[in-house]
Amino acid sequence: MTADCIIQVINPNTSRAMTATIADAARAVAAPGTEILAVCPQEGAPSIEGHFDEAIAAIGVLQQVKLGREAGVSGHIIACFGDPGLLAARELASRPVVGIAEAAMHMATLVATRFSIVTTLPRTLTIARHLLHQYGFERHCAALHAIDLPVLALEDGSGLAQQKVREQCIEAIRHDGSGAIVLGCGGMADLARELTQELGIPVIDGVSAAVKMIESLHALGLSTSKHGDLDFPLVKPLSGMFGSFNG
Amino acid sequence: MTADCIIQVINPNTSRAMTATIADAARAVAAPGTEILAVCPQEGAPSIEGHFDEAIAAIGVLQQVKLGREAGVSGHIIACFGDPGLLAARELASRPVVGIAEAAMHMATLVATRFSIVTTLPRTLTIARHLLHQYGFERHCAALHAIDLPVLALEDGSGLAQQKVREQCIEAIRHDGSGAIVLGCGGMADLARELTQELGIPVIDGVSAAVKMIESLHALGLSTSKHGDLDFPLVKPLSGMFGSFNG
Amino acid sequence: MTADCIIQVINPNTSRAMTATIADAARAVAAPGTEILAVCPQEGAPSIEGHFDEAIAAIGVLQQVKLGREAGVSGHIIACFGDPGLLAARELASRPVVGIAEAAMHMATLVATRFSIVTTLPRTLTIARHLLHQYGFERHCAALHAIDLPVLALEDGSGLAQQKVREQCIEAIRHDGSGAIVLGCGGMADLARELTQELGIPVIDGVSAAVKMIESLHALGLSTSKHGDLDFPLVKPLSGMFGSFNG
Amino acid sequence: MTADCIIQVINPNTSRAMTATIADAARAVAAPGTEILAVCPQEGAPSIEGHFDEAIAAIGVLQQVKLGREAGVSGHIIACFGDPGLLAARELASRPVVGIAEAAMHMATLVATRFSIVTTLPRTLTIARHLLHQYGFERHCAALHAIDLPVLALEDGSGLAQQKVREQCIEAIRHDGSGAIVLGCGGMADLARELTQELGIPVIDGVSAAVKMIESLHALGLSTSKHGDLDFPLVKPLSGMFGSFNG
Amino acid sequence: MTADCIIQVINPNTSRAMTATIADAARAVAAPGTEILAVCPQEGAPSIEGHFDEAIAAIGVLQQVKLGREAGVSGHIIACFGDPGLLAARELASRPVVGIAEAAMHMATLVATRFSIVTTLPRTLTIARHLLHQYGFERHCAALHAIDLPVLALEDGSGLAQQKVREQCIEAIRHDGSGAIVLGCGGMADLARELTQELGIPVIDGVSAAVKMIESLHALGLSTSKHGDLDFPLVKPLSGMFGSFNG
Amino acid sequence: MTADCIIQVINPNTSRAMTATIADAARAVAAPGTEILAVCPQEGAPSIEGHFDEAIAAIGVLQQVKLGREAGVSGHIIACFGDPGLLAARELASRPVVGIAEAAMHMATLVATRFSIVTTLPRTLTIARHLLHQYGFERHCAALHAIDLPVLALEDGSGLAQQKVREQCIEAIRHDGSGAIVLGCGGMADLARELTQELGIPVIDGVSAAVKMIESLHALGLSTSKHGDLDFPLVKPLSGMFGSFNG
Repeated sequence: MTADCIIQVINPNTSRAMTATIADAARAVAAPGTEILAVCPQEGAPSIEGHFDEAIAAIGVLQQVKLGREAGVSGHIIACFGDPGLLAARELASRPVVGIAEAAMHMATLVATRFSIVTTLPRTLTIARHLLHQYGFERHCAALHAIDLPVLALEDGSGLAQQKVREQCIEAIRHDGSGAIVLGCGGMADLARELTQELGIPVIDGVSAAVKMIESLHALGLSTSKHGDLDFPLVKPLSGMFGSFNG
Repeated sequence: MTADCIIQVINPNTSRAMTATIADAARAVAAPGTEILAVCPQEGAPSIEGHFDEAIAAIGVLQQVKLGREAGVSGHIIACFGDPGLLAARELASRPVVGIAEAAMHMATLVATRFSIVTTLPRTLTIARHLLHQYGFERHCAALHAIDLPVLALEDGSGLAQQKVREQCIEAIRHDGSGAIVLGCGGMADLARELTQELGIPVIDGVSAAVKMIESLHALGLSTSKHGDLDFPLVKPLSGMFGSFNG
Repeated sequence: MTADCIIQVINPNTSRAMTATIADAARAVAAPGTEILAVCPQEGAPSIEGHFDEAIAAIGVLQQVKLGREAGVSGHIIACFGDPGLLAARELASRPVVGIAEAAMHMATLVATRFSIVTTLPRTLTIARHLLHQYGFERHCAALHAIDLPVLALEDGSGLAQQKVREQCIEAIRHDGSGAIVLGCGGMADLARELTQELGIPVIDGVSAAVKMIESLHALGLSTSKHGDLDFPLVKPLSGMFGSFNG
Repeated sequence: MTADCIIQVINPNTSRAMTATIADAARAVAAPGTEILAVCPQEGAPSIEGHFDEAIAAIGVLQQVKLGREAGVSGHIIACFGDPGLLAARELASRPVVGIAEAAMHMATLVATRFSIVTTLPRTLTIARHLLHQYGFERHCAALHAIDLPVLALEDGSGLAQQKVREQCIEAIRHDGSGAIVLGCGGMADLARELTQELGIPVIDGVSAAVKMIESLHALGLSTSKHGDLDFPLVKPLSGMFGSFNG
Repeated sequence: MTADCIIQVINPNTSRAMTATIADAARAVAAPGTEILAVCPQEGAPSIEGHFDEAIAAIGVLQQVKLGREAGVSGHIIACFGDPGLLAARELASRPVVGIAEAAMHMATLVATRFSIVTTLPRTLTIARHLLHQYGFERHCAALHAIDLPVLALEDGSGLAQQKVREQCIEAIRHDGSGAIVLGCGGMADLARELTQELGIPVIDGVSAAVKMIESLHALGLSTSKHGDLDFPLVKPLSGMFGSFNG
Repeated sequence: MTADCIIQVINPNTSRAMTATIADAARAVAAPGTEILAVCPQEGAPSIEGHFDEAIAAIGVLQQVKLGREAGVSGHIIACFGDPGLLAARELASRPVVGIAEAAMHMATLVATRFSIVTTLPRTLTIARHLLHQYGFERHCAALHAIDLPVLALEDGSGLAQQKVREQCIEAIRHDGSGAIVLGCGGMADLARELTQELGIPVIDGVSAAVKMIESLHALGLSTSKHGDLDFPLVKPLSGMFGSFNG
């Protein structure tokens, strides 16, 4: 590998179409010396829309992180807005790991005092609220909106989901008193730049944001701390279907 | 099954010795009409001591919740202090699910204005802090202590870990200004009653606390809400090693 | 007394009709070995609908706790949604004390990630907000609703108040994005089970919840901590109308 | 009465010596047109050192507020550091009511970014923590200290308690990184000015602070809001020993 | 100077009309022995309506504080609702400094459990939110309203801005569930007393509130702490346009 | 200008030596297409060590932002750990603005669950605490340490300050339970990479972190939101020494 920085972008669901959307968004912003390795688990759920789906997805994320680490990547991105398995992945990785919700929220606080979130199904709002809290941004989020369509509607080619995202963004601009919008799904990654230009406020996609964050950490020589709770997992024999994590 | 209330106590790690310790603690407080079904995953990690271990354990928990649900249990307990997979399990279950960290912390706030936590390895303190926050008890926790021994030291028969737990409890009583102690590991379940009597303050084990909480919810006719984010997972085909969750 | 567990249920107001409603709700969920002693102060206010009423009610609660302690009860319940005198009662008691707001809120967090509260007069919402904060559940409460009728309207036999409670519950389900409802008055104790079934989400009454919590603490051998701020009140001569607390 | 402003200073305990100490502190800072009416309940506890004592004291406070209101005072001060009965008193009063913990904490935030508290018995620290939270000052308080002597030690003439207060203040200055000290007991009211001069940092007594706050509210024409939860208590017949509140 | 207490009231903008409005409001509540010195910067912005304006205004405030200190005033008031330069002014001053947002918010919490804010332009709401947080009152504020007119509209003689303030106050009373209103601009200082009487709830102006707070601190002998972060600025040569701060 | 991205790095103090240190740190991590324009105000304070110094520095920052904007830079960095004038600068700028405290804290949360801060004088700890709060990271910061030397000691060539920073970092690693260290002064920018390697945990300098953040925002096409409170300052005639901001 001759790239300066190899970023493994992990789509935690098994949808190849969405993996492609995410890969495109990642490549569109990658620096000249950055190589994007877009992957998704071979086993798992076709979309992530709840706590259960996230628990399943976390295993696939961890398997990919292990593979990425063995391949010597420079960092890992978890490309689902719930950031499933983030802290576990940081334990497993020797290099930095960033979630796309985390990346988008961080970026939003740099360009606006408060932001709104536009996501897919209402049931995922709880996940977003928990992340806001974990990352410290609950006071920076003015409101959360759901378009009330499932994740895969973003890949059905009809454009309906995209239209609803646009409408919710406009609603948010009118009523929330926020200065930026965070798109709450990896499948919306291709909409950010266009909506930013059309609507005149920063509309932020986590995939592209995370690419720049990994590039940044890489350039700074900063990796996941191995001092304390993010140290490598204690070595212990995992059994059955988890045996692939051994060794 | 003729019991009033059948409680599935899930030890999220694969240690049979610890499963037995947990089962004993559960049975010691179960009401006459309650049956305890103590289980552990067939595949997974022998102990849970970090974020990665928790992600692995969550799958085993979910598999057991599915089995328990099919067997018609009245409720489920996640018997590891990190409550791995709690919200995912609530989605999957039709009946109540309680984690032992959750149960112990709730009980502690009923008998003291502030409590201390005594757990195993320092790296798990972060997990406890996150749970305090998620459950709303960060202001009720005066201090966290780690005995700096791994979970399985509690099962090595030497009594060293038990002695260190006792010492940390005495430290906590002297310096924390708290009125109760929460034991931070399922493997400490057998110590609570004895320490409560010896030390003269409530020392709380989450396994027994969770048994009473499930019995309580069962008697009240309260089950996990299926309105909103804890509704059953959306039906979607899971692939590979997760196929057992289908159907 | 031959019961396993004797629970003193204290209605802090002097309404005998409401005491009977509360007693019925308590007995409906009591375990076979539990005896319910439902009492109310002989002197005090006929209903509790504000900070002043609560201060009055606290004295009646404390007098009953003293009597209950002398009678050897296993635990005490404060059956008014403001939990008047809770920490003072814990000082005075040697056994556990639980408030019904506390009990209902705790139970709600076990079956839903967020809950709504439906109470009586708008002026009591401040009290509920303060309790949410004291117990750590301010982030778990999605919204508070008042039916704008006084407490005793629940006992007037017209059914109007009950109808308004039902309507507010339906409103809450539609708009709050919460998964459970907490009924905010001891006088609503008889409505929970029916509304739970009709509306399809957990509707939680604190009286029955508190009965199970006291039974749980009793079975676990956990009593109010006497280490620290909940220790028995320092012995000092109380004068005048408070002389009955001496000795 | 010809004074501009008549302030009823209510010592919530029945100690006449402490009432005199408090009266002196109040008069020492009262404006020329202000009259101080120092009172204490005829019935109650000789000192307030816990949650139970506070519940008892609240009734005496409310009785005095009623008398003060009938006498046409301009405002009321609750001169015990736990501010017992504060919100209930605000309901009952038509004029402003201020607690001395509240007053001292407010003043401290005006002269320092963080303050320390020095109080009497360790068991009262919980009360102070709850007030910090209720008033919004938990982040402004760097540390809490207890001299571990009961309230009435301040009136025993030995000077020991006063000496311990001084020592704790010096400790606080050395280690807390705070810029001011709040004295946590009405019985310490006479120490503030002297310690301020000796130690070179603001040492704040709540009694004198509350006098100026009532004078301020009076001059501004601001009284307790009667819109919402602080409106006068709903008229209802109180029975027995509370009958004196009727009419 | 023969006054007991000389209060320097600093209007941070350069509008002489608004300085007069503020001076009048201050004098209307000043005690007999208090002298009001109303000043505004000679250089700066004609109104303060955002973060940039505040940074400019802070310098003018500091210049005036320096002059006031040299003139021996008893305290300083920063009469703009954003309290620009407050902590810097406290460093520079030897006597107390109070901001009008701070003063109004403090007073509001003494007469109501929750308050609403009515201010000028929506863009200043962020500033008010930050202050609520800094002072600890975010839970005491029920809602924020903007009349959507610039600050100087309050001085245009048309009465339109005043009418909009009144309307927003009425809205707040109807829908916020708060018990008091804080006026969010120094230019509204003359409206408080009239609106308090007309609307029947406390409407609080920070200028008059701050006058009483400085008088209070002065009478209590309390000055800005010089122990810690509010100590006088370290002596260092300031260059250029800041040279006037040297010596 | 032919660079892809031109970053104006503003040292808010007037020390040319420190400006050079900061410029070197910025250039060391700048991407190939990035040009670093390191500037400092011509008028101001030689070091920033308190609230007053920050107010002064903010003006210099704003003057430089205006010049940078006119020169067409791609983004601005405020290279003092208090991030003086950050929100005002965002108003004034059309492109992104990042503070070094902000940048370092954000980066730290990406590689560790908790971090420690090591800064210069104890009096600046209050500023750091306020920033933690503003940015949402108060729960991510385990502890704050001060080396108790002034900022310019970092430039005196003796190496004493550098040695004290190193010692405090080692202290933090031993006792704080945190996984990363944030260096709390622009003058420490050259120490981060060396300490990271020596101590084996991420030691983070805000200058280099901020360079990567501006590059990231630039590449993502994200600029400071001009919708809401960060919109350009309202046009109004500034007088006197602020006249240079007009036009």
